[in-house]
Parts: sequence; C-alpha cells; structure tokens
Amino acid sequence: MSLIEKLQWRYATKKMDPSKQVPQEKLDQILEATRLTASSSGLQPYKVLVITNQAIREKIQAIAWGQTQITESSYLLVFAAWDNYTAERINQAFDMTEKARNFKSEAGDAYRQKLLSTYPPRDTELNFTHAAKQAYIGLGTALIAAAYEQVDCTPMEGFDPDALDHILDLRAQGLRSVVMLPLGYRKTDEDWLVNLKKVRRAKEDFISLVE
Amino acid sequence: MSLIEKLQWRYATKKMDPSKQVPQEKLDQILEATRLTASSSGLQPYKVLVITNQAIREKIQAIAWGQTQITESSYLLVFAAWDNYTAERINQAFDMTEKARNFKSEAGDAYRQKLLSTYPPRDTELNFTHAAKQAYIGLGTALIAAAYEQVDCTPMEGFDPDALDHILDLRAQGLRSVVMLPLGYRKTDEDWLVNLKKVRRAKEDFISLVE
Repeated sequence: MSLIEKLQWRYATKKMDPSKQVPQEKLDQILEATRLTASSSGLQPYKVLVITNQAIREKIQAIAWGQTQITESSYLLVFAAWDNYTAERINQAFDMTEKARNFKSEAGDAYRQKLLSTYPPRDTELNFTHAAKQAYIGLGTALIAAAYEQVDCTPMEGFDPDALDHILDLRAQGLRSVVMLPLGYRKTDEDWLVNLKKVRRAKEDFISLVE
Repeated sequence: MSLIEKLQWRYATKKMDPSKQVPQEKLDQILEATRLTASSSGLQPYKVLVITNQAIREKIQAIAWGQTQITESSYLLVFAAWDNYTAERINQAFDMTEKARNFKSEAGDAYRQKLLSTYPPRDTELNFTHAAKQAYIGLGTALIAAAYEQVDCTPMEGFDPDALDHILDLRAQGLRSVVMLPLGYRKTDEDWLVNLKKVRRAKEDFISLVE
C-alpha cells in the first residue's frame, strides 16, 4: 500500500477491539516519528504521555463523553503542551542543542536572545497556544505514522482539559493537556463509521493555486 | 529507507536550490496526504495555497525576515485557516458529507446541532485558533509526506501574518494565514544546517509512561 492508500485506509475509529494489542515495536515507531517531527525553533514544547493504566483510562473516559476507544485501545496517547515559555525552558533547549552538536555560533546566540526577549514576557495563554500548535504538528505526524504502521487511531479533542490535567497531575509538571490519540485496532462489526465513505473537500475547494 | 530514516533525513532546510524542481507528482502526493488527514469534526477549516508566482513570493519574502527558501523553493505552501466558524460553513461541511454518503442519521443531526449551537456564538479569536490548530495537523502531515517523497521543506512561522493576509487577499475569503511550508531541494554546499546533527529531546524526556 502506498502512503496515500494507507491514509485512505485510516479513519477516526469509533470502536476498537480490546482483544487486539498493538505491538510494542509499532508503538515505538509512532512515538519515534513524533519525537523526530518539526517544532517551532526546535523547542518541542510538549510531552506525549502513553497511558496503559486501565483505572486511569476509566477516569479519563468519564470526563470525555464516555468515548469507548479510551479504554478499548492498546495505548492512549495524551499530548500535553508547556503551560508557558520560560527562560529556563528556552535555555535548556538551546544548551542541549549546542552540547549535542558541540557547536556554538553568534547567530545561534542571537536567536536564543531573540526568543528569550520575546516569549517569556508575552501573555501566558498566547505562549500555551503556541506550544499547543506544535503539539498538533506532533499529532499530524503521529496520525500518519500510525496509518503507515496500519494501526488505528482517532484524534480526540472532546474532553474536559482541566479535569484531564487534574487526573494526570499535569499542572504540577508545567503542562496542560491538548489532544488525545488512542491507538488500537478497529472492531469492524461494531463500528458505525468503518464502512461509510471517507469524505473530504474536493481538491479545488481545499487547494488554491497562485500562479 | 524506512519512514523513520526518512524523518531522520529531513531537516528544516535553510538553503534551497532553485535549479532543482520538485516534480508535479510529488507535490500532488504531499497535497493529497494533507487533504486526507484528520481535522476536528471533519470540517477541514483551512485551505492550502500553492504559490509559484515569483513576484508574489518576493513580496512575501520581504515580510518574512528575507528567508531565502521562500523564493528558492519550487512551491511555497501557505496554510490559511478559517477566520471564524459560521453556521454556513458548518452546514456546508455536514451537507457535503451527507450527500457523499447518501446517509442521514439522528446522531449526525444532533452532532451538527451541537456544533451549530457551540461554535458560531463563541469568541471569533477562539474559533480562529481552533481552526489554526487543525491547519497544524495538516502541516504535520505535509511534513512527513514530504519526507516520504524525499522532498525538502521547512515550516515557517516567522512572517507578519497581517501583511501576508493582505498580499494574498485572504481576509476577503474569510481566511487568515497560519504557517508556511516551502517545498524544494536542499542546496547542500550552502546550507549551514545540513551537516549539523539533528537534535531532539531524549525519549525519556519527551515521552512519559503512565502504567
């Protein structure tokens, strides 16, 4: 199957089969793709939590409209973004990069200073939203990596983020929940969506050429 | 090359070779992957503009810190999100889906009504931000699809969005610019970043297991 065929195969799985387990190596590939994807200034301002604990997943299900994939999936990924950009976080990212590359430059320093003088003084909510957008790049990457591995998933925004932050104790870690992605396998005979046509806007509505 | 190897190969290309043209079929694959990716409630609340016009790209470069990839790339993609969720847009998306599937359901109607009663009355900026996040899923998908096709790209947030909206006349179309992605080929001998190590946070810093 080509990548496009795999993306046609994927859909927002509504019913997963808890008896089918996603192999560890497929999970690892999906997480590694997510770790390798791009983020603004390379800050990677989010974490991915991989939740297998069933009691915790039941608590999450209760604050997420009872969506069954939360407990039926093999792994529940929670993307949690930095609650703010701080000087400490920015410096840590730049320090790590310089150390790994054994490379310092004036341009690099100037760029670090630019972020330090721009991000931390900004409104916290603006910073969190910017970090959350980077998590969505991770989500877009995880989605396609899951399709590539022929693992089913369904992105979920439908949950109470404050309640999820509380369940996972995210605020104490300087994080806030953004979006969830259960990974598992479709239960074909019980999923109302699986046989319905995938619908997308026509190319000419979605893409504009400026020639 | 595996998908992971391709993601290791990709990097935020700083210098592109304008003499190397990305083939049309590779562009089409990247755009098709983006069109097929997920979005909240399937609304696809954004457009992708594909800009080849050189005069327009020069204008964009001028409001984007002079980043050279804007004019060196084969195609400049601009992701532009809906400026707001309106009843018309929501109804259009649901109507399209029902028509394509030839399927109407009470649950579908209830879901449509839920969005109609929730989104349009909300703050415009909140709606735009939500739509912009969906465009970031598209960006994350386009990035990995480009890597899969071994096309270089570099996501760009560094531009004046109001000026870009003006250059592309986006506001009149109910759109606002979110992020750009030039597609092209690396000019290895002139790119300071190409030979530097790709740095990412360690797995144990990026991923948390909740077992």
